[in-house]
Amino acid sequence: MSDRVINFNPGPATLPLSVLETVKNELLNYHDEGMSIMEMSHRSKTFDNLVIETGALVREIMGFSDNYQTLFLQGGATAQFAAIPLNFSMEGKYGEYVDTGSWSKKAIAEVEKLDKPFRVVATSKDDNYKYIPTDFRIGEDAAYFHITSNNTIFGTQWQQYPNSGDVPMVADMSSDFYCRQFDLHQFGLIYAGAQKNAGPSGITIVLIRKDLLQRSPENIPTILNYQIFAGKNSLYNTPNTFGVYLVNLVMHWIKSQGGIKVIEETNRRKAKLLYDQLDSSDFYKPHARKEDRSIMNITWRLPSEDVEKKFISEAIENGLVGLKGHRSVGGLRASIYNAMTIEGVQALVDFMKEFEKKNG
Amino acid sequence: MSDRVINFNPGPATLPLSVLETVKNELLNYHDEGMSIMEMSHRSKTFDNLVIETGALVREIMGFSDNYQTLFLQGGATAQFAAIPLNFSMEGKYGEYVDTGSWSKKAIAEVEKLDKPFRVVATSKDDNYKYIPTDFRIGEDAAYFHITSNNTIFGTQWQQYPNSGDVPMVADMSSDFYCRQFDLHQFGLIYAGAQKNAGPSGITIVLIRKDLLQRSPENIPTILNYQIFAGKNSLYNTPNTFGVYLVNLVMHWIKSQGGIKVIEETNRRKAKLLYDQLDSSDFYKPHARKEDRSIMNITWRLPSEDVEKKFISEAIENGLVGLKGHRSVGGLRASIYNAMTIEGVQALVDFMKEFEKKNG
Repeated sequence: MSDRVINFNPGPATLPLSVLETVKNELLNYHDEGMSIMEMSHRSKTFDNLVIETGALVREIMGFSDNYQTLFLQGGATAQFAAIPLNFSMEGKYGEYVDTGSWSKKAIAEVEKLDKPFRVVATSKDDNYKYIPTDFRIGEDAAYFHITSNNTIFGTQWQQYPNSGDVPMVADMSSDFYCRQFDLHQFGLIYAGAQKNAGPSGITIVLIRKDLLQRSPENIPTILNYQIFAGKNSLYNTPNTFGVYLVNLVMHWIKSQGGIKVIEETNRRKAKLLYDQLDSSDFYKPHARKEDRSIMNITWRLPSEDVEKKFISEAIENGLVGLKGHRSVGGLRASIYNAMTIEGVQALVDFMKEFEKKNG
Repeated sequence: MSDRVINFNPGPATLPLSVLETVKNELLNYHDEGMSIMEMSHRSKTFDNLVIETGALVREIMGFSDNYQTLFLQGGATAQFAAIPLNFSMEGKYGEYVDTGSWSKKAIAEVEKLDKPFRVVATSKDDNYKYIPTDFRIGEDAAYFHITSNNTIFGTQWQQYPNSGDVPMVADMSSDFYCRQFDLHQFGLIYAGAQKNAGPSGITIVLIRKDLLQRSPENIPTILNYQIFAGKNSLYNTPNTFGVYLVNLVMHWIKSQGGIKVIEETNRRKAKLLYDQLDSSDFYKPHARKEDRSIMNITWRLPSEDVEKKFISEAIENGLVGLKGHRSVGGLRASIYNAMTIEGVQALVDFMKEFEKKNG
């Protein structure tokens, strides 16, 4: 498909080409059922099996035990920002948050708006979110401890998760979902809008430790109630069926690549290629501190805004799109999610070398 | 596509074949942008234009004025069951509901759960929801008046909407969205999960009268706040972008058919074909009362459950699928949404004639 660009969009983002080809091939007739997957009842045996298989795959690929349940929900991280305090708040305890940028701030604004007890235990706002704070304590009176594992806008990522002890850790992994292996045992819940590393937008993947399901109170909106959706295996109401199907294909694609271990190795190679280029001269100025650099979203500035504009427009002419940075940082951002190939990153690096030669 | 079945699924449901063919054709490369619509940023100019155009089409096709705004949300009717009382409740006033079946009951259960003031002004529960109640009064102290315009499970449909005076009428139109023309002026809000008449599951279409936006209080979950999503033209967070795209294609398809007027005429012809068959003998026993029959979901019983099973399995052998009735009614149900062709209904009627001959 030489007419396809190299897509560095931050999300919705590039998907594995083989996944899209499968979708295309079976779009009018899914598995000889004579209809599109989109036209199939969510109560059919075929779709029910698909949900069960996909939920199991999501657990299996990362090594989550049967103590966890996969949920397929709607509304993206925005819905989870509300669902977490609504489901997990406890009398006399606090939701604790680390503020590492825009998305953390939104999660915090939501718990505040819903008038549930919370504390911000650390923030890296003082240096425009260039780093991940390490100097904080998780309270014994914490109901849960919330982090944003990767900061799409600023290009930082938790390299090591803190020890939260008995307090269930909750992580918004929307922008680094399944990009690397990690120690699962502390997590009470992880959530991710699928549109970066796992599928299209409009479907949210949640992994929840089953003992936490009992916390859900009755008097919250049903659509945000983990216990109700867990009890119906995500089929309380009609889910985004096409989204579940795409997540299924992406999970199979991860397996076909060799699993998370291989995905992580490739991601680290891709990130190294880019960071080595950024570090090779003073022309490119990376935003994030070295020790907290994300392997998913890589952010940098150029000597001036004019040069940045030139970079973006010449990149587009070279088939490299989606590189404009978020206004909070400015400059450039390359989102190199799982589906971005090494060749794609290499093409960007080659372009960067050329661009520096001409404009450096 | 002779390998496609005739799909009477209640939802997700059959889609226009030409729409699916368009999706297939541009799946890897949307409008020469070098990527799938699923891989495109929701902040791109292309997608922003698509949302604006689709919102305008949804209004234009039915004749909604600029006093109304289209919203593309997530979570289906279940999310709206909560959003309506959360956004529209008023001090000293009541949400008023008419109970016409399972979905009405869920809407009522949700307002009760959220502890907002409500009243059920009428119900047809006494006769297993075979009819639409007419004997009720809408209170002057109603904050809103809620109905389910079509009852998927029971096969009833409001033929004429009641006069709600100054009280904004709110309708769950999930299963008869844009199947016919109707008098718009009383509606404060209509909503529909797209998966029956407008697209895939995972996207909800809301039309809201703009003056009602000011009712939204601040301290409700952002994901359920109409005012916030209206202020950002449905792009407060990442919407179901693929869903918006499909709704766009379906709206264009409605126009290509000649608009709602022609869609309605075709729907009435389809329904008449089936009801005439049901009424032609005592073998088929329609569930809904004649005066309240739905033109979207047609429900009936056969002389025995064994004969019903036989009907369903022989229908499948004839390429007619999705005809099993919901357990609350039993028997058969044919969902003949906009995308179901006259030929599809004729094939079912022909099968019914044959089946009756052999088993009557």
